[in-house]
Amino acid sequence: MSAIIDIYSERKVQLINITSEIESLVKNSQIKNGTCIIYVPHTTAGVLINENADPSVASDIEKALKRIVPPISFEHIEGNSPAHFLSSLVGCSLSIPIINGSLQLGRWQGIFFSEFDGPRRRKVIVTMLSSSF
Amino acid sequence: MSAIIDIYSERKVQLINITSEIESLVKNSQIKNGTCIIYVPHTTAGVLINENADPSVASDIEKALKRIVPPISFEHIEGNSPAHFLSSLVGCSLSIPIINGSLQLGRWQGIFFSEFDGPRRRKVIVTMLSSSF
Amino acid sequence: MSAIIDIYSERKVQLINITSEIESLVKNSQIKNGTCIIYVPHTTAGVLINENADPSVASDIEKALKRIVPPISFEHIEGNSPAHFLSSLVGCSLSIPIINGSLQLGRWQGIFFSEFDGPRRRKVIVTMLSSSF
Repeated sequence: MSAIIDIYSERKVQLINITSEIESLVKNSQIKNGTCIIYVPHTTAGVLINENADPSVASDIEKALKRIVPPISFEHIEGNSPAHFLSSLVGCSLSIPIINGSLQLGRWQGIFFSEFDGPRRRKVIVTMLSSSF
Repeated sequence: MSAIIDIYSERKVQLINITSEIESLVKNSQIKNGTCIIYVPHTTAGVLINENADPSVASDIEKALKRIVPPISFEHIEGNSPAHFLSSLVGCSLSIPIINGSLQLGRWQGIFFSEFDGPRRRKVIVTMLSSSF
Repeated sequence: MSAIIDIYSERKVQLINITSEIESLVKNSQIKNGTCIIYVPHTTAGVLINENADPSVASDIEKALKRIVPPISFEHIEGNSPAHFLSSLVGCSLSIPIINGSLQLGRWQGIFFSEFDGPRRRKVIVTMLSSSF
């Protein structure tokens, strides 16, 4: 069972909370036990999990990610190598267990689409696998 | 099939070897072929795989992770933004194949719960999915 | 369903494109819907997804990864702690959805085995799980 979430980023580097969209998909799937795979089919974006309560956590992570790119000269002519680098560092794929119909996010966890070369139109592929048990 | 591992960290940044607990769960599940998903439901911790032989590898990784946090001022009032950042960088989810009843860790690989804001009581969710083949 | 890809790296840090090998395995598996798990059983290598078009993107990522290792003194006597560190940062496991028989890579995405301590002989474990739907 798969679905696509459409995303419109507004800033160059931006964490966008997609937790509620994914929780709805899990609920609608009626899968009792299994896993939810969140996949970003882009090379200058990713997906990460972090705090869903205080929004300054997401903005601190954005700030730190921008600063972690080393100050070297890149060759790729489009000029967005920092975004490609951050995409590979953060990763584009996550697997979250589903137990008794509920996505096993921790109390403070939210799922964030991670834009590194916005603003752009993006998509996230959400796939749910049911366990054989 | 799912289980929870309880963890008690003792230091601020600490890699804790949980390989044997996970291998026991895989064995007890009697799954022949499939995947084992290791999920950390926290926002200031993660999970990684690295060398299980010389303990100085884990301590070198702890040291490098502490140093990779950029020296910027963070806004999040709890003061643990470096831990949130490292959690997103290392990641909180891993998928390891199970083939012929055996978790496919390489010869030198171990699984490490990664504490970035200890000491704390933590948990890891371990879910096994059987393939349909 | 699982298979092993053999890899021979030629440089210390090297991204090696394994997209076509993995796409063949997915095709041959005849799985319609499910997920493909790509797993690297080594502690000084990893796997990442990034641009498959302009080869300067991969070389820019190699360059940035080398530079992101902090200039600290490591204890591990083999001298390859930077490679262990990068392995944990990039990660050794990826899950990519399969929908209607097709691996859901984005238009520009390729899968790269990531060598951090070459040249060496390496392997990648590719496991496909079929969804129950």
